[in-house]
Amino acid sequence: MDRAPNDIEALIAQMARLPGLGPRSARRLVLHLIQRRDQSMRPLLAALDRVTQTAQTCSQCGNISTAPDCAICTDGDRRATAEICVVEDVADLWAMERGGVFKGQYHVLGGTLSALDAIGPEDLRIPELVARIQNMGTREVILALGATVDGQTTAHYIADALGSTGVAVTALAQGVPMGGELDYLDDGTIGAALRARKSF
Amino acid sequence: MDRAPNDIEALIAQMARLPGLGPRSARRLVLHLIQRRDQSMRPLLAALDRVTQTAQTCSQCGNISTAPDCAICTDGDRRATAEICVVEDVADLWAMERGGVFKGQYHVLGGTLSALDAIGPEDLRIPELVARIQNMGTREVILALGATVDGQTTAHYIADALGSTGVAVTALAQGVPMGGELDYLDDGTIGAALRARKSF
Repeated sequence: MDRAPNDIEALIAQMARLPGLGPRSARRLVLHLIQRRDQSMRPLLAALDRVTQTAQTCSQCGNISTAPDCAICTDGDRRATAEICVVEDVADLWAMERGGVFKGQYHVLGGTLSALDAIGPEDLRIPELVARIQNMGTREVILALGATVDGQTTAHYIADALGSTGVAVTALAQGVPMGGELDYLDDGTIGAALRARKSF
Repeated sequence: MDRAPNDIEALIAQMARLPGLGPRSARRLVLHLIQRRDQSMRPLLAALDRVTQTAQTCSQCGNISTAPDCAICTDGDRRATAEICVVEDVADLWAMERGGVFKGQYHVLGGTLSALDAIGPEDLRIPELVARIQNMGTREVILALGATVDGQTTAHYIADALGSTGVAVTALAQGVPMGGELDYLDDGTIGAALRARKSF
């Protein structure tokens, strides 16, 4: 005999496989939803259903969108097309947008080069990037890739690949994060911040 | 202009209100689901839809079930009806079942008495408990309520309320939890374990 009925157990098992959730939090979530069927469960179901039907990848930048071209790519009036910010994935694009500082266009690579995971240049959207740079008259490509080995390898590869296009290639500054205390920073960050020091 | 398209933002906002999730984990979850539409999103949607349609409260014990009477209440062959375990909510019932030791029936109170939250005896399923005890020929009521002030107040109230029925009322033992180290236990637990000491 099942501890909880089958459909409910199946839902919990599925929830438990989602990132950031485990069996305990999935059980708690499912109980919450069942006990608030009208306030929580049905609206969530409707929202999930809408997104399942409408979410798609923007044909230009690779952002996730509810239209073939995303709201950033189609907002040529307010967003400069002379700058393209290259990010690893959609989560990074959203993080940049939350910062609210960048007002140009994006390009989602779909990953970073990785020897371990056997991800080569042909797995990333680099040819699309070159094509867009030429079509859009881009003047600057800003590499907003992670300060990891794979991220930096990818940044170098892209900088090389764009060498012949004549576009300026820049990268996010590395240094002390806002609110960061030196004592808690790793040596690499302190070194990078020191090398990139600016007059005060 | 929205950072992410509207439907997706709405889904993230709804997810972020669920227990154990916040804006960051909700974003991560939604991106995961969108990017794995066929492997993750559609099965989850189907499972949620099934549970929304079938989940209901067992008319007898208060467990959540996919039938009017739950699998425990209808399993009279293998589950003794002479013992009823009283729990605060469905999550506690499931926790008891995971323990796998108890083989009787349950009764979900739907909360505990709480002066702060203005929950009185009339808000709990105590009359239903009394009726079930009489109908089922129960011989023992096991109070599996939390070792909190409200839990213990509720336990005392129920023991009083059942005084006239002649049924035996017991409660879960208090003591050192499995794997517990004395140095990390609170004084109350150590005191309770000492008072309830057993010959070795």
